[in-house]
Amino acid sequence: MKMNPSKQKVIEAATELFFQKGFHGTSVRDIADKARVNVSLISYYFKGKQGLLEFAVIDYYEKYLETVEATIKQNQHLNKLQQLKELIFFIIQYKQTKHQFSCFIHRELSLDSVFVREISVTYLAKENHLLTQAFYGVLDEERTSINDRTYLFMQLKGMLVTPYMMPNEWKHQIIGEYSHQIFVRNYVKTIHDWLDCLVMKPKNYA
Amino acid sequence: MKMNPSKQKVIEAATELFFQKGFHGTSVRDIADKARVNVSLISYYFKGKQGLLEFAVIDYYEKYLETVEATIKQNQHLNKLQQLKELIFFIIQYKQTKHQFSCFIHRELSLDSVFVREISVTYLAKENHLLTQAFYGVLDEERTSINDRTYLFMQLKGMLVTPYMMPNEWKHQIIGEYSHQIFVRNYVKTIHDWLDCLVMKPKNYA
Repeated sequence: MKMNPSKQKVIEAATELFFQKGFHGTSVRDIADKARVNVSLISYYFKGKQGLLEFAVIDYYEKYLETVEATIKQNQHLNKLQQLKELIFFIIQYKQTKHQFSCFIHRELSLDSVFVREISVTYLAKENHLLTQAFYGVLDEERTSINDRTYLFMQLKGMLVTPYMMPNEWKHQIIGEYSHQIFVRNYVKTIHDWLDCLVMKPKNYA
Repeated sequence: MKMNPSKQKVIEAATELFFQKGFHGTSVRDIADKARVNVSLISYYFKGKQGLLEFAVIDYYEKYLETVEATIKQNQHLNKLQQLKELIFFIIQYKQTKHQFSCFIHRELSLDSVFVREISVTYLAKENHLLTQAFYGVLDEERTSINDRTYLFMQLKGMLVTPYMMPNEWKHQIIGEYSHQIFVRNYVKTIHDWLDCLVMKPKNYA
């Protein structure tokens, strides 16, 4: 569904400002000025800043989970390790395509708010369910305790969010549109290598 | 140097509020109420909320870098891999001891502000210098390209901040004071295992 162009402009302006200054540091007026629309239009479309945030977050997660589910479905003919690797690629690619919003949303999720709790019980719970299924499928159950698995899963989740939680540190790797694709390829490779290592488990490596 | 107890109380209250509600979402009045002090005392001690933030961040990083430097100095008799492992342990332990402030500061560093840029050119540049020295020392130069090394270093840095950037996801691992130590041990082990794997570089693992 094609979004109304001025609605789209408001969301783009808000994304950039939320990313730079945070949600609390951005006013409705800042957004209106940047999008070159009248303040009242933001109230009309979104019923204010909180409504805009909710709209954008829901849109982000709906499309994210669609991507995750479609990737899982398309790759069922592959072995479990390959399935997980493909999934990781598409997750990083999705986040990279919406770079500023990914950075903003991951920062926001580190807060403890009613909105975060709502997102957690809906989208994040579903994401966790899909990711654990894919990840635990590749771990050797006999050689990995439940406790180890939990920590390894959190380590994987960390890798999936790190570039978007440390944008100032990663930004030197991304200059121009083309380099987004190079970044995705190189970064995904480091996660794939980590997975290979986990699955191979050489001597002394639990 | 022992800090004035009411100054300490203000910092503790501010840390908890900044962690929960963010810097912008916290007012000086919130801090004064939580610390049970008069608002004017915060102006007197810190010249306002920004001054309080700066004081706390500088204190955090000064002690952090002291810990890092002391750990490097103490472990020079060990081989390079062991030195790095010890360093990682002390870094995670330091961050865990100041859990709420670690979460807050890592979130704040993802913003693009003058204050973040000031922190970056001082403390973060020094941290990067010390960490790259320790990390690149264990990588096999002939088998790791400069590009690979950069990505691996960022992966390490990601692991050092992940638990503090996703506090809501990690919190189930930490219940009570004792479990902080268990967390440190278990989490550091996953990073050590990753390092072992990097250094051993089995076949097909670049």
